[in-house]
Amino acid sequence: MQNSSENKGVKGITQESFPSSKKIYVPGKLHDIKVAMREIHLSDTKDRQGNVLKNDPVTVYDTSGPYTDNDIEVDIEKGLPRLRESWIEARGDVQKLDGLSSEYGRGRLNDQSLDSIRFAHYNTTPSKAQSGKSVSQYYYAKQGIITPEMEYVAIRENQRIDELKQKYKYKEGCEKFYRIPSTHITPGFVRDEIAAGRAILPANINHPESEPMIIGKNFLVKINANIGNSPTTSSIDEEVEKAVWAFRWGADTIMDLSTGANIHETREWIIRNSPVPVGTVPLYQALEKVNGNVADLTWEIYKDTLIEQCEQGVDYFTIHAGLLWEHIPHTIHRTTGIVSRGGSIMAKWILIHHQENFLYTHFEDICDILAAYDVAVSLGDGLRPGSQSDANDKSQLGELKALGELTQIARKKHVQAIIEGPGHVPMHLVKDNMELQQKYCDDAPFYTLGPLVTDISPGYDHISSAIGGAMIAAYGTAMLCYVTQKEHLGLPDKNDVKEGVITYKLAAHAADLAKGFPGAQYRDDAMSKARFEFRWKDQFSLALDSEKAMQFHDETLPDEGYKSTHFCSMCGENFCSMRASMEVRELAEKADQKKREFAQKGNEIYL
Amino acid sequence: MQNSSENKGVKGITQESFPSSKKIYVPGKLHDIKVAMREIHLSDTKDRQGNVLKNDPVTVYDTSGPYTDNDIEVDIEKGLPRLRESWIEARGDVQKLDGLSSEYGRGRLNDQSLDSIRFAHYNTTPSKAQSGKSVSQYYYAKQGIITPEMEYVAIRENQRIDELKQKYKYKEGCEKFYRIPSTHITPGFVRDEIAAGRAILPANINHPESEPMIIGKNFLVKINANIGNSPTTSSIDEEVEKAVWAFRWGADTIMDLSTGANIHETREWIIRNSPVPVGTVPLYQALEKVNGNVADLTWEIYKDTLIEQCEQGVDYFTIHAGLLWEHIPHTIHRTTGIVSRGGSIMAKWILIHHQENFLYTHFEDICDILAAYDVAVSLGDGLRPGSQSDANDKSQLGELKALGELTQIARKKHVQAIIEGPGHVPMHLVKDNMELQQKYCDDAPFYTLGPLVTDISPGYDHISSAIGGAMIAAYGTAMLCYVTQKEHLGLPDKNDVKEGVITYKLAAHAADLAKGFPGAQYRDDAMSKARFEFRWKDQFSLALDSEKAMQFHDETLPDEGYKSTHFCSMCGENFCSMRASMEVRELAEKADQKKREFAQKGNEIYL
Repeated sequence: MQNSSENKGVKGITQESFPSSKKIYVPGKLHDIKVAMREIHLSDTKDRQGNVLKNDPVTVYDTSGPYTDNDIEVDIEKGLPRLRESWIEARGDVQKLDGLSSEYGRGRLNDQSLDSIRFAHYNTTPSKAQSGKSVSQYYYAKQGIITPEMEYVAIRENQRIDELKQKYKYKEGCEKFYRIPSTHITPGFVRDEIAAGRAILPANINHPESEPMIIGKNFLVKINANIGNSPTTSSIDEEVEKAVWAFRWGADTIMDLSTGANIHETREWIIRNSPVPVGTVPLYQALEKVNGNVADLTWEIYKDTLIEQCEQGVDYFTIHAGLLWEHIPHTIHRTTGIVSRGGSIMAKWILIHHQENFLYTHFEDICDILAAYDVAVSLGDGLRPGSQSDANDKSQLGELKALGELTQIARKKHVQAIIEGPGHVPMHLVKDNMELQQKYCDDAPFYTLGPLVTDISPGYDHISSAIGGAMIAAYGTAMLCYVTQKEHLGLPDKNDVKEGVITYKLAAHAADLAKGFPGAQYRDDAMSKARFEFRWKDQFSLALDSEKAMQFHDETLPDEGYKSTHFCSMCGENFCSMRASMEVRELAEKADQKKREFAQKGNEIYL
Repeated sequence: MQNSSENKGVKGITQESFPSSKKIYVPGKLHDIKVAMREIHLSDTKDRQGNVLKNDPVTVYDTSGPYTDNDIEVDIEKGLPRLRESWIEARGDVQKLDGLSSEYGRGRLNDQSLDSIRFAHYNTTPSKAQSGKSVSQYYYAKQGIITPEMEYVAIRENQRIDELKQKYKYKEGCEKFYRIPSTHITPGFVRDEIAAGRAILPANINHPESEPMIIGKNFLVKINANIGNSPTTSSIDEEVEKAVWAFRWGADTIMDLSTGANIHETREWIIRNSPVPVGTVPLYQALEKVNGNVADLTWEIYKDTLIEQCEQGVDYFTIHAGLLWEHIPHTIHRTTGIVSRGGSIMAKWILIHHQENFLYTHFEDICDILAAYDVAVSLGDGLRPGSQSDANDKSQLGELKALGELTQIARKKHVQAIIEGPGHVPMHLVKDNMELQQKYCDDAPFYTLGPLVTDISPGYDHISSAIGGAMIAAYGTAMLCYVTQKEHLGLPDKNDVKEGVITYKLAAHAADLAKGFPGAQYRDDAMSKARFEFRWKDQFSLALDSEKAMQFHDETLPDEGYKSTHFCSMCGENFCSMRASMEVRELAEKADQKKREFAQKGNEIYL
């Protein structure tokens, strides 16, 4: 296995399959679709008698897109294949526009000085719902329609587990975690969950490159990675590579939080090359347009930004529409005030203008825009607690109630909605957050940032937040926004992004196990079997981070021969419990054999 | 602040105080004792009006010993001051022996070839209980006696919090975590907890250098770090430095799991220089004595090893006495068999000899030895699950019941006892482990390894296990044994030890918050206030790992001036929510002021 970080394809983009893995495509039954998955091939088990036993390959959920398919060479100048384009067209409810609808978008397009950095196959003719038509997955689901997108996620979530003998039964725990229904995930089930508003399938009609995925408590827990929040200029290749890097390691969605110059063009490059849904906080760009002067923000500028981004293909927007004037006085005596960027901007705007939050007053208008492109709304928690001391306080819970109100408006307008959550919360208050969110927001999916379970761990906040994240996900949170080890301190680099993504994959997977997700334990069991049988290479292949697992192993035992030895450097040869345990097994089996022989001869049992 | 890893004192041992911190000593009231603590000094708060407000220093629990006291220069050739010596002598129940009681110990002492590596102030005249006397803290507690050790931990656990206004009230959580009693931790409370067997105070009379600490669910959650498990030879200085390094970062106890040559001498050096209790697994050394041949292990060799280590000053022994012959057949069909080193050794011994575990059959003899030195027993879980698939199975729970039986024997013999626990356990089965342990083992303290909540995260198993560890600690586990990121892969280096210790401090602290430990939130609040006020240096001082926090901050903003700026590189100046939030606070306060003026004039309220 080569170090993928050193193995770059065209223009410095990481393109390499995972070790011992092959991209496979599972066909649909209702629709002409092919669902991408990763199949990990394992070596044979050789027992002490010299028998060779095959190990079935392990199929896992794969967010990495075509970049890890050895048969595909991605050219980021052309963008990814437009997987969903024919599905969207076949529904006959969208229109190709003559040009861009946003003033800002047109301005950028007509600016010849930007030609050199512009994506060549620019989406100059975006699509939009035909007048009077609804084009959201939520609307289709309400009509009883199973779209190709819905069948795709049904197959994807099952990870071919229905083809395998399903021996991974849920062990009843005394802990009251959320437990997913015992039904298999079928296309009909997917549709029903979306129709109930309990799950969303973010799928902007202008982002046909995305591979459908679903966010809801009855599905695998998803994770989001934030990228592009660099105030320094970086080349477009670097920005695309950051995105590719994030979903390579497991990001189910990415949020582009770029600020600075050329974010319009950079975003285009990212979306055209992203197989996962892309989220943004449009307020950031709107604020850039008024040179950072909060007082100058207007609904018109914000609206134009929404349309600009809808037509580029952003799949979901964080919108801080629930932070109301009446909540602000409650924040004054908080330990850490308002820690959400969007939240602090809107609070400032409200107080400067002595007017209610324009995102709230214009929320119906916002929904009308989003619905025309099937952009989902992620209702931002501008008042999330930024410290243990502020957790579950009046401001936070007041805003959460307002988000519940807005959820109903979004649904009325056929806009898919999820709710953002904290933040910093001590462990004993985590469950409350989940229960109140489900209650106030009528079962809409919860999307939390951690939460961090202590404030005193700068440098380790990916861990502090993974503890809270695993717990809140086990209680039913549908998606976790990762936190990197640089949180509270500085800008994450590529390594921090990877560490953060893997840490969150781990937390999400732990929650899948706790929720009794069918087949979740399948990969753990394959890993543990490989571990017990000293199949080191299989352990690396099955690991969330194969590179690091191998690197750590090789630090003390680098020779290739040590990858087939029956011990590692941790305990050494003579103190290897696994090795001794294998001998115990043999001894016990022999004893068992003797016992049977004795029993046949009428003698007493001695094991 | 200098990087302490580069700042070595005598013989390469890290001796440096923590940043902005001072070692303080709080006197006792019942006894003539001085309890060491760390006091963190904070800078002043400067508000926008230019007012300067003092911030009280923050006192925290400190495991680092005299090494971080600037007024003390530790000479490891002499060992640490013998803090408890006079307390022990004053009780009048111990006798100084004429020499070492163990054959092995005498052999090593008389071997002149070892002179060069021998600790100069060798403990050639160890102490032992006078005939017919009991010298354990458990025995004293049962007699109603409050020892100096008990008063020490009462003061230590309170961290002077009783001197401060106690505003850190427990917020009632809907989650049923363990909640500590609302009573203050007094010397009498400490005594009663020890007398009930709910807590232990490991304090070998031959380790008078140790600063008293307590392990029990009604106290701060403790963590253990394993050191010295290197099969390669390393110098004695290096071994001592490993120990110093572990308790510098927060290890409440260390376990010396050394194998290989000269472990007897190395252990002596470690104990003489350790302010924290030291644990071992005597079986490892016993096995070394028979050249790794399990078949050759005998009770006599083991017994001599126990006495050897008791007289060196080991404070607690892991003893795998609950793994019985009848449990072994249940392990045959496990995914990962027996993953405990001690467990696999004893299982092999049982099957080779067709005899019951000699640690079980000789358990009363073992207790008689331990009681004479006040060595605690940590009842090892030789059958802990090594995979999600094996969690809470028959072998594990069968052994746990046997450990409960042994607990009663230990108590009868006045030996302090704790119980070891898993291992690998999915989140939804974590609480079961705690409840069954408390039930079977009559509330004896639980001491767990993690547990890891997934098997697929090699390279990140410190995180996987910190999730399970934080949870099980919140349910009442008294001590967590750390897991490093090298777990399952190789030998931890110094950096891995530090990462592991800090990760576990974080998990333990999160549990303290969840359990409502009085004053636990005090440090979090100080950190959050420093964060909100952009007091960067105070954030570093208050962090669990000051070095890393500063290093991460400085990676993007290295200039000294950036340590007083009102933003960091994460969001940049214009998008800093904290900065904006401060402006919001001012605006809101102004509005509030206007509101009051308006109200006085009879006008309508507008905020």
